[in-house]
Amino acid sequence: MHELITKRRVEFSDTDAGGVMHFSRYFIFMESAEDEFLRAVGASFTHPIEGRPGGWPKVQATCEYLASARYGDMLEIHVAVAKRSRRTITWRFTLRREGVEIARGRTVSVCCAQAEDGRFVAVPIPAELSARIQEAPEQG
Amino acid sequence: MHELITKRRVEFSDTDAGGVMHFSRYFIFMESAEDEFLRAVGASFTHPIEGRPGGWPKVQATCEYLASARYGDMLEIHVAVAKRSRRTITWRFTLRREGVEIARGRTVSVCCAQAEDGRFVAVPIPAELSARIQEAPEQG
Amino acid sequence: MHELITKRRVEFSDTDAGGVMHFSRYFIFMESAEDEFLRAVGASFTHPIEGRPGGWPKVQATCEYLASARYGDMLEIHVAVAKRSRRTITWRFTLRREGVEIARGRTVSVCCAQAEDGRFVAVPIPAELSARIQEAPEQG
Amino acid sequence: MHELITKRRVEFSDTDAGGVMHFSRYFIFMESAEDEFLRAVGASFTHPIEGRPGGWPKVQATCEYLASARYGDMLEIHVAVAKRSRRTITWRFTLRREGVEIARGRTVSVCCAQAEDGRFVAVPIPAELSARIQEAPEQG
Repeated sequence: MHELITKRRVEFSDTDAGGVMHFSRYFIFMESAEDEFLRAVGASFTHPIEGRPGGWPKVQATCEYLASARYGDMLEIHVAVAKRSRRTITWRFTLRREGVEIARGRTVSVCCAQAEDGRFVAVPIPAELSARIQEAPEQG
Repeated sequence: MHELITKRRVEFSDTDAGGVMHFSRYFIFMESAEDEFLRAVGASFTHPIEGRPGGWPKVQATCEYLASARYGDMLEIHVAVAKRSRRTITWRFTLRREGVEIARGRTVSVCCAQAEDGRFVAVPIPAELSARIQEAPEQG
Repeated sequence: MHELITKRRVEFSDTDAGGVMHFSRYFIFMESAEDEFLRAVGASFTHPIEGRPGGWPKVQATCEYLASARYGDMLEIHVAVAKRSRRTITWRFTLRREGVEIARGRTVSVCCAQAEDGRFVAVPIPAELSARIQEAPEQG
Repeated sequence: MHELITKRRVEFSDTDAGGVMHFSRYFIFMESAEDEFLRAVGASFTHPIEGRPGGWPKVQATCEYLASARYGDMLEIHVAVAKRSRRTITWRFTLRREGVEIARGRTVSVCCAQAEDGRFVAVPIPAELSARIQEAPEQG
């Protein structure tokens, strides 16, 4: 499975008055890992798709919280492609602290390109990018 | 079903370079509606539970994005209790713009109280609060 | 002085593990008041300027924190135009809780319009908008 | 002068519909550099002060924006102690992209310790921590 592992420390601004990382911030950690994966295969959230401005809006996002994360915790984020359809990528995330899984998530991103009227419309994932994702070496 | 409807405008800081509301911000909109529902029944995220400091950490959060929201859009957030177990509440959210559903979500919150060692542990939802949630009048 | 007063409750996601509103969130509260002021005079952060897409990027932002704000606090945000130059507006903000000032801030926004090459460049504030700001009635 | 240099990439969630990094996010970048500086001298935002829970709330924050930052930009954040008083540290920040300064900021943090009633009160910066800050080697 093509997997990338990255690290990120929980910052003070990621926490809430409950003393732990706010539940919405896990999605930011996930997206930063998705971004890093895309960069590792020569793409990004705004990389051109078929010569036009590209985008990868999400149509679904979910997270299960197994344990709290606190300010200063160094988290390991595992990101992998769980599924690919013609136009979408389903990303699977695991967040670990000292080897212990504290959260797992999933997002579905749609490959989009800007049409002439300025709107972003779903398009097939370019074959060349698809191949690079396919070949993405495991890391970590 | 007990439902509360609230409104919130998409602010500039809710958007991203894609020109639309960032996917993580929908969870903030949902949480603010959950907060308002709790206030409507005399509680809040930090309201005492059985005389001790209380909390409602989330163990699950999910959102489906049906259409983009843009800066300035006035959204209607519907929040309802989808399910209650002894210790948890499953909230169901619908976000609408001019009557059209643009996102739907779900979060599961666990009723917690601070133990003597300072940690928050899951406890049964107090009967009295449970009854007030049960009786929460529909609004909107 | 042209002043607008708006209210906003400190949400759970505005707080940090110190138990108080995170210092960066005050700027969000300020910007939302600036936004509301602009809407009150028929503009917004993206309102067209001289027929072209407009923008009001900030060139300066500052805040003094006098007292903490906590989750659930209802804050009153006063926003006023402190100074206008040909191309900029200096906004002055005061945040109050139950009548007591807890923070004061200032931001400087530059009136911009999108040039043909897609870049946003500073332009004079349109006379008509300037007049409406001038005449903005005091509120609150 | 004691200076630490760190790097941070502008993420998609740092941007707004104007296509650039939102002005409030610069303060997050600054705080993460302050955090890293504190860690480099064996402290942190919650490190105990005189044996009691510690904190470093900000009493002032300011930023001047010289040029926009965009999604994907790798920024260099320079953080230095501009001034120390008995109870406060004034931090000075410079954000650079490819060697060019794009923003400069300043925050003032107060050394606090938790009193017996649970409140955080300003206390003198411990001599030992003060010495370590004094001796912090230049980096970068």
